[in-house]
Amino acid sequence: MPSSITSHHESSTRQRIVEAADALFYQRGFEKTSFADIAGQVKLSRGNFYHHFKTKDEILSAVIELRAAHTQAMLEHWTASEETPMARLGCFAEMLIRNRKDIQRYGCPVGTLCAELAKLEHPAHGEAGMIFGQFRHWLREQFMALGRRADADVLAMHLLSRSQGIASLANAFHDETFIRREVAQIHDWLLTLHPEEPAARRRAKTSNPPKP
Amino acid sequence: MPSSITSHHESSTRQRIVEAADALFYQRGFEKTSFADIAGQVKLSRGNFYHHFKTKDEILSAVIELRAAHTQAMLEHWTASEETPMARLGCFAEMLIRNRKDIQRYGCPVGTLCAELAKLEHPAHGEAGMIFGQFRHWLREQFMALGRRADADVLAMHLLSRSQGIASLANAFHDETFIRREVAQIHDWLLTLHPEEPAARRRAKTSNPPKP
Repeated sequence: MPSSITSHHESSTRQRIVEAADALFYQRGFEKTSFADIAGQVKLSRGNFYHHFKTKDEILSAVIELRAAHTQAMLEHWTASEETPMARLGCFAEMLIRNRKDIQRYGCPVGTLCAELAKLEHPAHGEAGMIFGQFRHWLREQFMALGRRADADVLAMHLLSRSQGIASLANAFHDETFIRREVAQIHDWLLTLHPEEPAARRRAKTSNPPKP
Repeated sequence: MPSSITSHHESSTRQRIVEAADALFYQRGFEKTSFADIAGQVKLSRGNFYHHFKTKDEILSAVIELRAAHTQAMLEHWTASEETPMARLGCFAEMLIRNRKDIQRYGCPVGTLCAELAKLEHPAHGEAGMIFGQFRHWLREQFMALGRRADADVLAMHLLSRSQGIASLANAFHDETFIRREVAQIHDWLLTLHPEEPAARRRAKTSNPPKP
């Protein structure tokens, strides 16, 4: 089945292009990265490269799609691996520490791409913003599960905002202590929102009715 | 005195170039802005332009110098126009509301330039970061005046970080309500730090000694 082999090979070449572009857009910025830079990383001839992508905007769309898929997988992993919404929100905050080296060097991949595309008035600005939307939606779900139905979206935006600010200043000052301190403050803040699990509270109410 | 007229004219041409570049770097980004874009804005011939600046990096240095001078003037204005450190810190927070239109469209001028220069590994990244340093230093002074000597720098970085996060998400979501809500939260947070002015407290202590 040579055709299926070819098609598999083509798809993996495409994948390699998108992954190389993903890294370069993050590390150097979208505007600065050229076709030649990406082709150089994946060691492709110009002809082979054009077979997969005709414009840098097509690559950008594929990169945003890849990032959205990675984000979705990460959020689903946090949902599956942690039992409580509080622990899941903690995973979000810890992401800043886990990615601290890259954040100090290149900032947040979502925030810096959105900011660049806004300035370029690039039509993909909305698509890139959808990745923030994925985080916002997931965070809102966790705050709702925490029993904060009324202000879940306000809290989601606040937490997303805190994480963006940390990434921005960590990038400007290259200060790991600052990241760790701010993440610890986020954990403290989360605990003030809801010290107990709603399920535990309901159980407590049922088993210990107030004495008359 | 024709020479003095010429020199004044030259200096104002230089000033116009730097101001045009300042706006373009903010609105489009540094990498995207070309010599031709800047010359077009100030309606200068290539020769006249090169008389003032030979490279885009020279213009960048002049833009950062201009922004640092504007920042210094703004901070000094806040210091002079407000009597209490709490009111001055309020000015800092209100800046997000005052500049909300530009922030929603182009993000924070300091944060987005720093982020871009970090990715470009541009030697001026440190210079641009000094503008964050100016804010940090001034905020630290206000927190110290508020009687928070021990954690003044931690609080300064926290407030700077909150403002950066707000700018980043306001730019991504174009949401003015979000900006106003987060700024109100910053005012609330400031009040929890120190509900009274130290001077007022001292006066209160002197005039109302505790009854035995």
